[in-house]
Amino acid sequence: MPRFRLTIEYNGRDYVGWQRQINGISVQEIIEDALETFCGERVTLFGAGRTDAGVHATGQVAHVDLARNWPVNTVRDALNAYLREEGGATILRAEQVPDTFDARFSARKRHYLYRILNRRPPPTILKGQVWWVWKPLDVEAMDKAAKLLLGTHDFTTFRSTHCQAKNPVRTMERLDVVRGWGDEVHIHASAQSFLHNQIRSLAGSLKLVGEHRWSEDDLMRALEARDRKHCGPVAPPDGLYLERVDYDEID
Amino acid sequence: MPRFRLTIEYNGRDYVGWQRQINGISVQEIIEDALETFCGERVTLFGAGRTDAGVHATGQVAHVDLARNWPVNTVRDALNAYLREEGGATILRAEQVPDTFDARFSARKRHYLYRILNRRPPPTILKGQVWWVWKPLDVEAMDKAAKLLLGTHDFTTFRSTHCQAKNPVRTMERLDVVRGWGDEVHIHASAQSFLHNQIRSLAGSLKLVGEHRWSEDDLMRALEARDRKHCGPVAPPDGLYLERVDYDEID
Repeated sequence: MPRFRLTIEYNGRDYVGWQRQINGISVQEIIEDALETFCGERVTLFGAGRTDAGVHATGQVAHVDLARNWPVNTVRDALNAYLREEGGATILRAEQVPDTFDARFSARKRHYLYRILNRRPPPTILKGQVWWVWKPLDVEAMDKAAKLLLGTHDFTTFRSTHCQAKNPVRTMERLDVVRGWGDEVHIHASAQSFLHNQIRSLAGSLKLVGEHRWSEDDLMRALEARDRKHCGPVAPPDGLYLERVDYDEID
Repeated sequence: MPRFRLTIEYNGRDYVGWQRQINGISVQEIIEDALETFCGERVTLFGAGRTDAGVHATGQVAHVDLARNWPVNTVRDALNAYLREEGGATILRAEQVPDTFDARFSARKRHYLYRILNRRPPPTILKGQVWWVWKPLDVEAMDKAAKLLLGTHDFTTFRSTHCQAKNPVRTMERLDVVRGWGDEVHIHASAQSFLHNQIRSLAGSLKLVGEHRWSEDDLMRALEARDRKHCGPVAPPDGLYLERVDYDEID
């Protein structure tokens, strides 16, 4: 069975998250439904990152096995025709890949963006697409503190109590806090894999640093405590985007 | 009566347009309602640009006379508290201005942005915030053609048949077509004033140039015809943003 890799964009506001759930419509479900309409098969889609409700993606990756060698542009355009009515998700790219490719387990690096709108008036056009923080943030202090989290650490403090990963140790390869478009502050985070709620937990704690309510020492003490109770308030899903997933080159 | 200038952002999707109308909720109406809740007066808000339904603003300007010398930040924050429930409009700035200031008639230049998402997959996160054009656009050809429209012309071809302006002559001071963020194409248009639907009409015709369906000569013939029937299909409101209004410095 030929394996296809799909690169997917979606508006997290419209769904209960990536993964199929009984309490609402998931991205996985609507694309599996579109695949069934397209090729008459009931298939399972495997995603690189299981984003939560409200979290967006501009470059989620998933793989699926289909019975036929469909031309990749036919797969993309047919799925998009079925997805258009739903409106919240679209296939950016479809490619055929070797059956050794696994969207989740072959991933070398995941890149996330967290967008904060840092101004006193609340968002209108960007509602649901950013975290609104009205107190002025010290972006330089946030970036400096973020650098202390680079490298390999036990991130128990910064993961959800529901996180199912056996090992709380992760290697943060990039954690930059920079000024974005207009009044936005952007947090760029890259690692091979993240724990559940790790970026939203870090964003919430870095915001405390940006407001000068936490020092760098406070942040390090929270990390070293390895205790969820020491985490700052978790940032909302609205600002989080799964931007890209890197894989080894496929020949 | 002290006069206040408000700088306003709104999501055009939520309203029937700037101006009070009987067929739905307008931006003018919700802000006038917020002003009444705030200071107990029934007042009229005068806007610089009467944007249509679906058209956004990141820098609309309006003026209003109030009975008291309210601190400007109180005006801004109180209005935003009342507007938050509505959620589609916010006051970016409030200032006190001389009573010779008129948001509409004192305006020296209006700056608009028209955003096109130029890619094959439809928008998800940006739905309602861009015009989706899936055929690849020749941005350089569009920009070159746009330059022919700079200066003073009779824009009868490029205005709505409902346009109420007596004079169809306008002076285009800026009309740039450039690549924007990601897969976006941005049209920047500046003039002291525009005709009704002028930018959407120009965007629709420039798109034909970008698709190589119209040559520069076709565009010029359309302009010179001074006849609405020669206009290309009018672009949707989704991509249009009133970005800024310039005034003479107020002392």
